[in-house]
Formats: sequence, structure tokens, C-alpha cells
Amino acid sequence: MFLHKQALQYKSTPEKPDAVYARKLQEVIGGQYGEITVAMQYSFQAWNTHIPGKYRDLLFSTAAEEFGHVEMLATMVAQLLEKAPVGVTEEALQDDPTVAAVIGGTDVQQAIVAGAGARPVDSNGNPWSAAYVTASGNLLADFTSNVNAEMQGRTQVARLYHMTDDPGVRDMLAFLLARDTMHQNQWLAAARELQEESKENLPVPSNFPQGKEHQEYSYKAFNFSDGEDMANGSWANGTAPDQLGEFAYVPTPMDGTPMPPPTHPDARFYGTTDVPNAAEKAAGMVQDKLKRE
Amino acid sequence: MFLHKQALQYKSTPEKPDAVYARKLQEVIGGQYGEITVAMQYSFQAWNTHIPGKYRDLLFSTAAEEFGHVEMLATMVAQLLEKAPVGVTEEALQDDPTVAAVIGGTDVQQAIVAGAGARPVDSNGNPWSAAYVTASGNLLADFTSNVNAEMQGRTQVARLYHMTDDPGVRDMLAFLLARDTMHQNQWLAAARELQEESKENLPVPSNFPQGKEHQEYSYKAFNFSDGEDMANGSWANGTAPDQLGEFAYVPTPMDGTPMPPPTHPDARFYGTTDVPNAAEKAAGMVQDKLKRE
Amino acid sequence: MFLHKQALQYKSTPEKPDAVYARKLQEVIGGQYGEITVAMQYSFQAWNTHIPGKYRDLLFSTAAEEFGHVEMLATMVAQLLEKAPVGVTEEALQDDPTVAAVIGGTDVQQAIVAGAGARPVDSNGNPWSAAYVTASGNLLADFTSNVNAEMQGRTQVARLYHMTDDPGVRDMLAFLLARDTMHQNQWLAAARELQEESKENLPVPSNFPQGKEHQEYSYKAFNFSDGEDMANGSWANGTAPDQLGEFAYVPTPMDGTPMPPPTHPDARFYGTTDVPNAAEKAAGMVQDKLKRE
Amino acid sequence: MFLHKQALQYKSTPEKPDAVYARKLQEVIGGQYGEITVAMQYSFQAWNTHIPGKYRDLLFSTAAEEFGHVEMLATMVAQLLEKAPVGVTEEALQDDPTVAAVIGGTDVQQAIVAGAGARPVDSNGNPWSAAYVTASGNLLADFTSNVNAEMQGRTQVARLYHMTDDPGVRDMLAFLLARDTMHQNQWLAAARELQEESKENLPVPSNFPQGKEHQEYSYKAFNFSDGEDMANGSWANGTAPDQLGEFAYVPTPMDGTPMPPPTHPDARFYGTTDVPNAAEKAAGMVQDKLKRE
Amino acid sequence: MFLHKQALQYKSTPEKPDAVYARKLQEVIGGQYGEITVAMQYSFQAWNTHIPGKYRDLLFSTAAEEFGHVEMLATMVAQLLEKAPVGVTEEALQDDPTVAAVIGGTDVQQAIVAGAGARPVDSNGNPWSAAYVTASGNLLADFTSNVNAEMQGRTQVARLYHMTDDPGVRDMLAFLLARDTMHQNQWLAAARELQEESKENLPVPSNFPQGKEHQEYSYKAFNFSDGEDMANGSWANGTAPDQLGEFAYVPTPMDGTPMPPPTHPDARFYGTTDVPNAAEKAAGMVQDKLKRE
Amino acid sequence: MFLHKQALQYKSTPEKPDAVYARKLQEVIGGQYGEITVAMQYSFQAWNTHIPGKYRDLLFSTAAEEFGHVEMLATMVAQLLEKAPVGVTEEALQDDPTVAAVIGGTDVQQAIVAGAGARPVDSNGNPWSAAYVTASGNLLADFTSNVNAEMQGRTQVARLYHMTDDPGVRDMLAFLLARDTMHQNQWLAAARELQEESKENLPVPSNFPQGKEHQEYSYKAFNFSDGEDMANGSWANGTAPDQLGEFAYVPTPMDGTPMPPPTHPDARFYGTTDVPNAAEKAAGMVQDKLKRE
Repeated sequence: MFLHKQALQYKSTPEKPDAVYARKLQEVIGGQYGEITVAMQYSFQAWNTHIPGKYRDLLFSTAAEEFGHVEMLATMVAQLLEKAPVGVTEEALQDDPTVAAVIGGTDVQQAIVAGAGARPVDSNGNPWSAAYVTASGNLLADFTSNVNAEMQGRTQVARLYHMTDDPGVRDMLAFLLARDTMHQNQWLAAARELQEESKENLPVPSNFPQGKEHQEYSYKAFNFSDGEDMANGSWANGTAPDQLGEFAYVPTPMDGTPMPPPTHPDARFYGTTDVPNAAEKAAGMVQDKLKRE
Repeated sequence: MFLHKQALQYKSTPEKPDAVYARKLQEVIGGQYGEITVAMQYSFQAWNTHIPGKYRDLLFSTAAEEFGHVEMLATMVAQLLEKAPVGVTEEALQDDPTVAAVIGGTDVQQAIVAGAGARPVDSNGNPWSAAYVTASGNLLADFTSNVNAEMQGRTQVARLYHMTDDPGVRDMLAFLLARDTMHQNQWLAAARELQEESKENLPVPSNFPQGKEHQEYSYKAFNFSDGEDMANGSWANGTAPDQLGEFAYVPTPMDGTPMPPPTHPDARFYGTTDVPNAAEKAAGMVQDKLKRE
Repeated sequence: MFLHKQALQYKSTPEKPDAVYARKLQEVIGGQYGEITVAMQYSFQAWNTHIPGKYRDLLFSTAAEEFGHVEMLATMVAQLLEKAPVGVTEEALQDDPTVAAVIGGTDVQQAIVAGAGARPVDSNGNPWSAAYVTASGNLLADFTSNVNAEMQGRTQVARLYHMTDDPGVRDMLAFLLARDTMHQNQWLAAARELQEESKENLPVPSNFPQGKEHQEYSYKAFNFSDGEDMANGSWANGTAPDQLGEFAYVPTPMDGTPMPPPTHPDARFYGTTDVPNAAEKAAGMVQDKLKRE
Repeated sequence: MFLHKQALQYKSTPEKPDAVYARKLQEVIGGQYGEITVAMQYSFQAWNTHIPGKYRDLLFSTAAEEFGHVEMLATMVAQLLEKAPVGVTEEALQDDPTVAAVIGGTDVQQAIVAGAGARPVDSNGNPWSAAYVTASGNLLADFTSNVNAEMQGRTQVARLYHMTDDPGVRDMLAFLLARDTMHQNQWLAAARELQEESKENLPVPSNFPQGKEHQEYSYKAFNFSDGEDMANGSWANGTAPDQLGEFAYVPTPMDGTPMPPPTHPDARFYGTTDVPNAAEKAAGMVQDKLKRE
Repeated sequence: MFLHKQALQYKSTPEKPDAVYARKLQEVIGGQYGEITVAMQYSFQAWNTHIPGKYRDLLFSTAAEEFGHVEMLATMVAQLLEKAPVGVTEEALQDDPTVAAVIGGTDVQQAIVAGAGARPVDSNGNPWSAAYVTASGNLLADFTSNVNAEMQGRTQVARLYHMTDDPGVRDMLAFLLARDTMHQNQWLAAARELQEESKENLPVPSNFPQGKEHQEYSYKAFNFSDGEDMANGSWANGTAPDQLGEFAYVPTPMDGTPMPPPTHPDARFYGTTDVPNAAEKAAGMVQDKLKRE
Repeated sequence: MFLHKQALQYKSTPEKPDAVYARKLQEVIGGQYGEITVAMQYSFQAWNTHIPGKYRDLLFSTAAEEFGHVEMLATMVAQLLEKAPVGVTEEALQDDPTVAAVIGGTDVQQAIVAGAGARPVDSNGNPWSAAYVTASGNLLADFTSNVNAEMQGRTQVARLYHMTDDPGVRDMLAFLLARDTMHQNQWLAAARELQEESKENLPVPSNFPQGKEHQEYSYKAFNFSDGEDMANGSWANGTAPDQLGEFAYVPTPMDGTPMPPPTHPDARFYGTTDVPNAAEKAAGMVQDKLKRE
């Protein structure tokens, strides 16, 4: 169950309106790595977890916090839009070039659709999609996904920090940056703890019987491009991070194996084939089949 | 530039057709974590990289290999579909219940749209979307995204391994599992190397001035749910993985701050407001404005 | 802020697993009118509201309840999937036709992607999209949207009720049906109250100056089809529901006005035009322009 | 069958081109509540109707009219784009700030893709999606959906009215506003008539046996947030709009019921589990199973 | 303007219901090349045409006809679903394997969402998307797109013909096949006529000054793969179809040109760079910039 | 298999940065007819081909070339963005109106998400979708699709040519225009060759038995609109391009056939019906059924 409290986790009030920035903030509301993504992702991971206790507690807690971040940002966006112009006359444009920037740079759907409000979309107006969510049931894979989400999210917030000089907006972003720092660290710690407790290990999934995979290809760094520096990385020699194999560099791709011959499905799929006089034969075959049907 | 060679990296031929399994394999062709995703993701990361040399070489090489995996899987799917039935009579169903399973379990678009061929979609028929791709320009964030992609992908391939007993299919999957093992390890090694070379550090982005974020919230584990075990994780005390702070557990959420008052945008957005007699006033205001326009 | 409590609003446990039904339930999790939609819709309406007090309180409260419904359904789906088969041999199919139905009727991504868990998608596997959300800032419009959402949602739950005979599932659905009854009534009451308080009126938006619209067309029922019964409805005569006009029936479409002539944009858009010798002229014009550039 | 007539229902010619406004008009062509949505929605409702006569006649008629509105708007957009600039030199920008606004504010795909023409997309360029359409077969639910669509649509057109001062555009919008007034009233009248004829009633679907739902929750206003004003609405006490129950206010959420224990699906799904030494056991179990396969 | 007539262009009644086939028919209603696509595509091409007369007349006429095909198919789907089962007991499955096929093979949203009706989606349940539509303003390009759409559509209808033996369904499909034959021929004729009238020519767009493109690459067949038979096609030598150049075969790819050095955008984008001690420098640079801001 | 070579097929370096143009170029990277589309389309056509030799060789070769074009464009975009401003102060706007244009006209996700890099999206930020891809297995249909793709693509590149005067950008576009010329010609030649070899013929699919379609409708040009010039085209009389029939013009639509009566599915779908006292009866029927269940 979720309960709502009419308070914001942290103050979210701009010093003055800025309709162009209101569009940019949409990225961290409804973008691939926005707050809706992490709120939904942690929720579904919690619901799909096969293990009670600390990991699930952490997922539920962080999910709830992230829904609150959506709220902070939506509240901020509405305030940034409070003075958004409805329309602009040509004279206004002549007098004030900043008006031109506002017109061009705003999210027109924030005005036409939401009446000067926030929307569950990204900064280009793409609706948030649940296709952004990852929840596999394997916690080491999913916590790694979470680390990535927090890294991408914090990078975007850091960029957004430099795109405004409004003290109120920056104050809120400075808070979100701190929480992203916490959450990056937290998922890294949780991923490490899973391994220390032998609940999961590398490579994911670690329970798959190693002997069933073709191990002769498990630690080989084949080079499918022509950059010679690929040989110089730690992935080209030494022990692999999973401690189960030794990296080896191969400067060329695998030789490969001949392609199997093209398929010949039923003629009633009407694919083009290489049988001599195929058209005639196929027509005959189809007519034969049709007669029998 | 990409060059094509008419060979498969590894043998991809089933022992016998299986139209139901052909649908399932679509997941690792065109799903969120299918081979198209990693091929495109590594390509865009390479093109957006601001640094020449070993990391970019590795991205180009792995991208090219992954396009070859799409090819292996597409070739496999076409063969699995080679005997796909076009239509089924009621008698056939009465005689053989497996036919019923085939009808229900196949991807009907593989038949109707592709004529018994592979498609760039997932196992539920959702077209592959570039919204799956991550390429931020920050290599530590992106390599972490890559580790996650390989973990999710290998988990899916492992599940698919148990959904068939065709030796030819399993042979190919055993190869893909091995390459996923390699690529998981490789991106982990590359992420570690970036840090050892001080090119990137935790938290991402590490160049953002730590003093600018509200550090009092950067290592606090607030509990927004009511699970008591959250206190027992390594994220609740001790040094954080970024070595820059000490975790501290707080058993309750932050108190929060009052919500700002609702906004009052221009009346011509026709939002519902709380001004006494708002309707009348707004109508008047609008009419005044319209007169002037 | 949202707080999470590790309890379900109502008991959500099936008597026995049913992987096919687990797919069907996805509709009311992640479909157009599933619980994610109403939870997000009421949240964004609350955040975009320009008026504090009872209406916003109602929005916040109902939003939080609906997030809890997502949780109930996701928990139910995971249990329905607990015995989902990984793979099926041909013998099993021969012995038990229900197995065939299970194979064909399940959501394969619940298995391959989520490892036997719920996903934020509908019953055909389409990811939930924020394009389902309505939040315009006009409360009469939005409450009407909410009534519709609860009507569609309750209709779907009622249909799903008849698609299972599992007592545990039906018990949960009987609860959700009751809450949908409440919420339908609640939004109808709220819409009525808005009008009684003169905060909003028909037609929406009621503040738009009536004189500015072409009122001669505001209450005319033109017939653009050839069904003669259209004349017999209450929309064809009598006072309109907004009490501002009288309906009148017109058995034929409007005469219409001639289409304006086709446009002739810049030749460098390379559209096909009707100027005599257009190709030659356009080529010349383009070459002239290119010279000047 | 649909027949086309080369005339516009109402005059749709701007006084002068305006490429920025051409982008904004896309919202009511191809947006969530644009004319394509209502045309398609009413069509599918008509095709799915289980009842001949006046309601279906009304659906067919209105659907056909709405396709004509798409045509009016597309024709308008093409004319607004007739002088759209192909490219802009830096000098032009220096001389005339309105040019800057034009560049930033236009839909670049109207130029690059359509060659200065209208597109079936919204004002942010999202392609129109059939996911916007509602057609459930239950006419009370669907007519309520239609009322909402006309309310949202008229609100957007009203906003767009204030975003231009072109007399030609405003003339057309004044016509569309009038038709939205008609259609709001018409669907309200139709919904009322359905109930007067006892074809449908509240709550939708009214045929579902009331005794089968958990009626003790059907009229309870639980508060899941902390706003005290929720108690003061007409949804908190008195007879509900469906006349079948009495509202009652409960200031707190339901207590809820304990969550069921996490699920333990087949180990071959590779989910993380809490069984002691799970990794070892699972690996063994998998290997056992694999041997048998 | 569009007018509706309550008649079907051709009889569309199945002999008996078939819920599985009802799903398959969705492909030609709401798929990439379904009837909605062509109806909308021809409409937008007509509205974007810059030339009155026969070509636009043809577009308007065919668009209207195609909307009628959507209607025929939707009507057929509703009838195929008329006996669709709501739910199925286990006993029914044991008795009749065809029931299993029905369960697995149906579109569950046709039942849950539409109440046994047609939907604007494809056979895998993907909502129709306006991203399928092509309307560029260049008629030779667009008529070629139309030829392709009719070819793909007729191929799909032909496949669907073999997936049923219901005489009523086949009767309707035999009509649609004939109309697809007409429309393929018609767009081919129109494309030819455009060229004969010199309105458009090859290559499209033919008005672009030939001298402005790098003509040394305009007729060269470089081989980027290793298949030797590519040399044997008519694209490898002889006069090109546009009559403006001679094909020449080159057995290898172009040599190419070195990649430009990686970019170095502003450090506040936090991309990973190769400057020695980049992290330190960037941090300093950022701090310097922040001070000034 | 795909191999990568660290070279560009042709030089792709702008003379100076232009962040607004960087957005426009996205159209031909990730738009409906961008280079990703053709690269993926030709790849899937090759993998789905049922015929080895020259046609498949051509598909593989061209697919690989097109992936290289994505690379050229992504490299160009990164360079155009190299000096993209992070943020802009109000003073800057006052001084330089071009800055306003830049702000409004850029793709904000290129900055926030990609850190000044290219993305797999179109010029309005829509992610590339595999729904753009066509690969039916019928080569005449697919080659026609390819001709269209190259025509649309070349038209877009030609328009983009006029939207910049940067010599470096124009140099690259002049190369792409040439390759589009080649590829248009190549697919036209291949389509012609298929027919000359009798592998495929018109109408597509030509193997479908002509007698099975309702030939009396196969060459009739019915007019569903009211434009009289439709009669004057080559589609209204004379021999059809497939040489199998004679066109005939019919100035009016077909008379059509009466619509079948509305369907009456199971009452448990809760559709609105026309049975007298339907509500009561349906409720009774449902209760009867429920009792039995």
C-alpha cells in the first residue's frame, strides 16, 4: 500500500518562472532515466522478488521515495510555467528577443494539453513508456540496472544544473544530486552484498551450469574492428572479473561457419524462390492444395 | 564502415522446425535486451565517445560482433519456421493436440507479415525501439549500462536454453551464453580500468563539484517503507563504495516541507481556479483581453 | 511524498496457479485503463490543480489507493505464475491438452523477461504508455475523464471475473469491482459539485465567451450518414444539457465551402506542382537560388 | 461505406502564413484528443455496437463529420506553411528576431518529411496512436468517454484560439468550438437517454450482479492522503449518484492484509531466492533437471 | 468532407464464428500495411498535394474506398467473435483440444477491452501508428510508396486466404484481393503517367540539380559484402533505369577516409575525455565556470 | 558477420558547428526513412530471402553500406554539436538574436541525454522504431519498398541540402544524394530483372490463382469522391500495367450490400444490447450462469 503525505521531501520553488527550462526538466520526470522510471522499476523489482527481507525492504523504500521525486519535479514545473505566455504578438517579438527563444524552446503541449502544467513525458514530448523498466527477478542483474539508472540520472541532473542559474531550481537539483549519490552507492553496496552472501555471483546468472556453455569462447577478446589499441585493455589479458577464466586477445574475428541454405517454406507464403520455373510450379502447387481444401 | 561476410560467427541450425520456439527467440533478437539493442548501443557509444583508443576500439569491435549475433538468430528463426503451417483444419486439431499448442503459441506476424521469417520485434511482437539504447558520453555510466545489458541478456538466453531440447538450438545458445560471459566480464573490466586510470570515478559524474550538492543527504538511508530489515544492509552503515562518505540509517522518511500554493496561470488556459466567482471573473478577464487583441 | 506500507489493501492470493490467467490480468495492471493509468492520471491531475482543498485532497487520496491496486495485482500475477512451466516436451502435450492451452495462452515475456513475474504491460504485452494519461487543468473535463476510466476499468474487471473460477482471484476482483463502483460514483459526485459551486459549467470550458463561437452551429444535429433513426434521439430536439441552446435536427450534412487551391511552397521542397513545365522551371529556379546562396 | 466530397464543411483559410502556428494546430489533428481520435473512436464504436438504430446512426454520422474536421485542419496547416522558409541565413536572424522564433518554434518534420504539409502527428511530433481510441461495446461507458474527448478537445481549441490573432484561423476555430459544443451536449444527451430507457445504468456495467461485489467497500471514501478537506465533498456522505448506496467517509486507509510470502518459481528462471545455500542447491537442481532432459 | 452510407461495399459475413481467425484479420485492419494505413496515407497525400485535378481526385477516391474496407473488416471481425468464449473450464479443455487452440490463439484484448469486437491494432495487438503513413508532397515518391503498400497488403491477404476455409471469409478476401490488384495497377499507371507528362522523373526528386551531387558515385555498385554474384545483376552494368548514367561494378567497398578526431564538448556535459588528468582539469574548469555564474 | 573498419566511407566534417542543424540531420539517421531504416530493412530482407545468389548478395552489400551511412551522419552530428551551449543567460539573448534561435531549435536531448552527441531518433526526437522495416519474403514487393525508401530518403536529403550553407555538410550530403541515386536505380533494376526472369510478376503476389479473386472488380476504377478529372487518367482506361486486364472507369461507388445485423455476444461481455428489457434479462442470464459456474 502507498500512503500520500501533502508535503514535499525537499523545497521545490523557483525564484522566477522559466517556461523553456520547464521543458528541459521534463527529461528527469518522464525520460528514459527520469524519476518515473526508477519509481516504477524499483516497485516491480520488489513485487517480483522471490526473497523477503532487507533487499526487498530497500526496494520498497526507494521506490516510494522516487515517487516523491516525481512530485517535487512536477510541482517545480508547474511553477516554472506559471507565467507562460499564451500567445505572442509580432510586436513583442520585435521588442524582446528573449521572447523568441521562449516561443521556440517551450513544450507546446505543456500549454495546449496541460494548461501550463507538468506532463508524464520527456523533454522532447515522448510519453513515458514502461519499456524503460527492468525487473528480471535476478537481483544482481537488477541492482546493476539500478546503478546504471542512477548514474545516467545523476549525469542528466548535473547537466541540467548548468542550464539554469535560478537559485531555487539549483537548490532542488542539489538535493536530487545528493540522493542520486546515495542511490548509486546503495545499489553498488547491495550488489556487492549479494555476492558476499553467495546469493548471486558473476557471471549472471551464476547458477547456469558453466559446463553447458561453450567455454572456449567465454574469455576470448576477438577483434571485429581494426583498432589496434583494443589489445591494450584489461579485457585482453589477465584474470576476468568473475575469477573463473583468463582473458585472451585474438586480433581477428572468428572464421565463422558457412551460412545454411535459404529456407523454402510453404508456397502459400508467396516468398520468392529459386526453384526453376518457380512461378509456374508454385501456382500449380497452390492450385493443387486449394482443390484439396 | 561496416563490411559484411557471408558466414555465421557460429553454427545456427536447428535439428527440426519449431514455430513456437521461433516466437520465443524473437525476444533476444528485438527485445529490450536483445542483440539489436546491444549492437546499436555500442555503436552509438562509439560514435559519441570523446576519447580515441582502446575504449572506443572495444566499442566498435563488440558492436560489430553483436550485429553478427542478430544475423545468427534471424537465420535460426527462419529455419525454425520452415515448416510452419499456413492454416489448420479442425480435424488436424482433433487428432493432434500439439497442433493446438502450435497455433496458439506462434507469432502470427512471422507468418502473415514476414512469410515465415524473422522480424525486428520481441517475443510479444513489439517492434524494437531505439528508446532501449543508452549512450550518454560518460563511459563509466555507459559501461555500467553495458554490464547490465549483458546480464539481462544472458539471463534471458539461459531461460530460453531450458525452453527447448533441440540440440542445434542449444548448441547455438551455448555459444551465445559464452559470449555474454565474455562481454559481462569485459565491460566490468573496462569500468574498473576507467577508475584505475582516474578517467572516471564514483559517483558518476565524478567531476561535478561535490560541494555543490547537498551533502547532508548524500549518504543517508531514509526508510520510506516499513520494513525493518532495511537497517541491516551494507547500505545502512559503513563507508560508501565511492569512498567519499559514511552511510547512516534513518528509520523514517524526511519530514518534508509544505507544498507551495497551487499556481494561477493565465485565465485563457481555462484551468479551474479557487478565486471567488472565478467563472464570472475569468470570463470578464478573457473578454477584456480579447477586446484588446 | 509517498510512503509505503508492507501490506496489501485486500487479500490477493489465488487458490492455485494459472499462467494463462496471469496474462489476462496484465490488462488491468498496464493496459489503457489499468491501475497504472488511474494512479498516474490522478497524481498528475493533483499536481496540475490550480485550486487547493477538497478536490485536490480527493485526487491525492485516490492516486495513492490506485498505486496500491497495482501492487495487489502484481502480487496476484506472481502467484498465478508460480508453477509456470519453463518448457514443455512433446509427450506432455500428447498427454494433456490443457498444457497446449497454457503454452499458447501465456505471456512469454512474463517467463523470459521477468522470470515468472508481473510486468508493466497490457494483456498483449504492449508497455504501459503515459499517452494514456489525461490531466488538463480543467477539473470538469478531467473528472469526466476519470468517470470514463473507472467505467472502462470496471467493465474490464467484470469481464475478467467471468474468465476464471478461482475463488481467490474472484475474491480480489470482487473487491476491485467495489472500489471501481466507489470511484465511479465519487468522480460523478465531484463533477456535479463543481457545477453546483459554479466553478465549472457546461460546455467545457465554460469561460470561453459564448459569443466568440459560431453559435448557429452549436446545437445543430447534422446527419453525415444515412440512418434515419438519428432524428429520434434527445440530441435532435429539445433543450441541450448545457441549458444554453435548443437542439435542431438537419437531415443532411452542411453544404460546405469550396476547397482552397492547393499550396505552392518553395520549389526547394520538391513537391509535385501543376505549373506548366514545372520540372524545367523548378530546376531553373533552384539553380538560380543555389547560385545566390 | 464512406464517400468523399471535394468541399470543406467550413472555410479554412488563414489570412497569412504562420509556420509556428502550423505546428501548434497539429495537436488537434493528431494528438490524444485530436480529430483523428474522435473520428476513429466513433467509427469503431459504431462497428462494435450490438444495437441498431438511433445510437449507431449518431455514431456513424459524427464519425464522418470528424473525418471532415481532420481535412479542414490539414488544409489549414498546408496554407499556414505555404511560405515556410527552407533555410535561414545568419544575417536574416540578425535583422529580424521573429525569424529566430520561427526557426525554433516550427515542426521540422513538416518541412523535411512532408515538404510543407500537415502530418498525422501531435504538436510535439508524436505519431497518432490507436491506443488513444476507446470502444468497449458498453455504450454508457463509451458515451462518457466521448463526452470527455469533446471536453478535452474543446479546451485545447479554446487555448489555441488565444494563441493566434489571424482572423481566418480564428474563424475556423470558432466553428470547431461550436461543433465541440454540439458534440459535448449530444453525448451527454445520449448517455442520459440510455439510462432513461434502462438500456444501461450506473455503475457501469450495471448488469454485473451487485451481490457479487464486496459491497461493504462500494461507497466508502477512505483517505489515503492527509488532506482534511476530503471529508467535505459530496463524495463523503449522502446518496451516491447511482442511487444504490450511501457514501461514508473514513479518515484513514484500510488496515490491509499481510503480503503473501514471495513466490518460488522453477529454479531455471534464475531468480534470486532465500533458500540457504540457494546458489549451490539451484545449480544442483538445474543440473539434475538437465540430465533428465 | 466525408459522408457515410450504411452499406458495405461488399458482403462480409462468415459462415461461422472463428475467434482465432478474428485475431489474424486484425493485421489487415490495423497493421503496418492494413486498411487504416492506406486510408490515412491517401488522405494525407491528397491534402498535401500541390496540384489539383486527376491525381488528387484519384487520391481522394481511393482514400474513401479504403475507409470502407476498414469497415468491412471490422464488421467481419465482430461476427467472427460472436461466439467467442468468455472463460473456459478445465473440463472443456480435456474434452476438446480445439478449445485449447482457441484460448491460446485469440486476441485477449478483443474480449477484455472491446467486448468481442474489432480494434484498431495489428494481429499482435500493436496499436495502429501514424508512423506507418507516407506523404511527402512528391507524387512520384508517394505513388511508389502506394504501389508498395498495395503489394504488401495483397501478399498478406493472400496468405490470410489460405489460413481459413470459411466460404464467407474467403468470399470477402477474394473481393479485397481484386481491389488490391486494381490499386497496384492504378498507382503503377499513375507513376508512369507522371513521368510521361514530365511532372516528375527519376531519380526522385528529379529537380535537384544533377551537378550538385557527387556524380562519380551515382552509378557505382560497390560490394560491401563478399558475395560474388552481385556482379551478375543488371545493377552492375548497362544503362541505369533513370537513363542518366551507366552502372559500373566495383568488387570492393570504397577505401574510405580517416575518421575525424573525437569531439571535445563543454566539460559541463561530463563526457569522458582523453585530456591528461582530465578529471582534475575538468573539475577545476567547472568550478571556475560555476564561480562566474 | 559484420566487420568494422575505422574509416568513413566519405568525409563528414562540417566547417563550423551548428546545433540547430544537428537536430535536423537526425531525421536521416533515425527517421522513418533514415539510414537505420534502410540498413535494418535490407538486412532482414537478406535474412528472410529464400533464394541464394545475386539478389541476396545485393541486399547484404547494401545493408552493410547503409550502416556506414549511419556512422557518417552520427559523426557529423557530434561535430555540429561540439560547441553547443550548455546554458544561456538572459544577457546573451539580449545581445544576439541568433542565440534565441539556437535555444529554440536544438534537440534538447542531444544535450541532456547524449552529452552533445547523436541519438537513434528522428528530428522530433521520436526513437527509431522497427515498425518502419519491411521484409515480406516476396522480393518484388520488397524491392518496390526499397525504391520508395530511397526516393523518400533522397527527397529528405535534398531538402536538408537547402537548409544549410556549410560547405562540409553539403559535401557529405552531395555524396549521400549520389548514393541514393545509385540505390534508387539499383532496386528499380532488380525489380525489373525479377520480372524478366519470371521469378515474380504483377500483380504481387503473382502466384495467387487469378481465378480465385473476384476478377470483375480487379480493373474497375470506381469513383468514391466527386472529382471529375479522375476519369482522365491512364488508370481509367486502357491495358493495366500487369497486362492481365483492361481498366474501366465507373463514375460512382459500388452500390454496396446491406450491413449485417449487429452481433450479440455472450451477455457477460456487458455490451449494450437491443433486446427489450435487456438489462433485466441480461442480469438474470448472468446470474443463472454464475450459479452454474
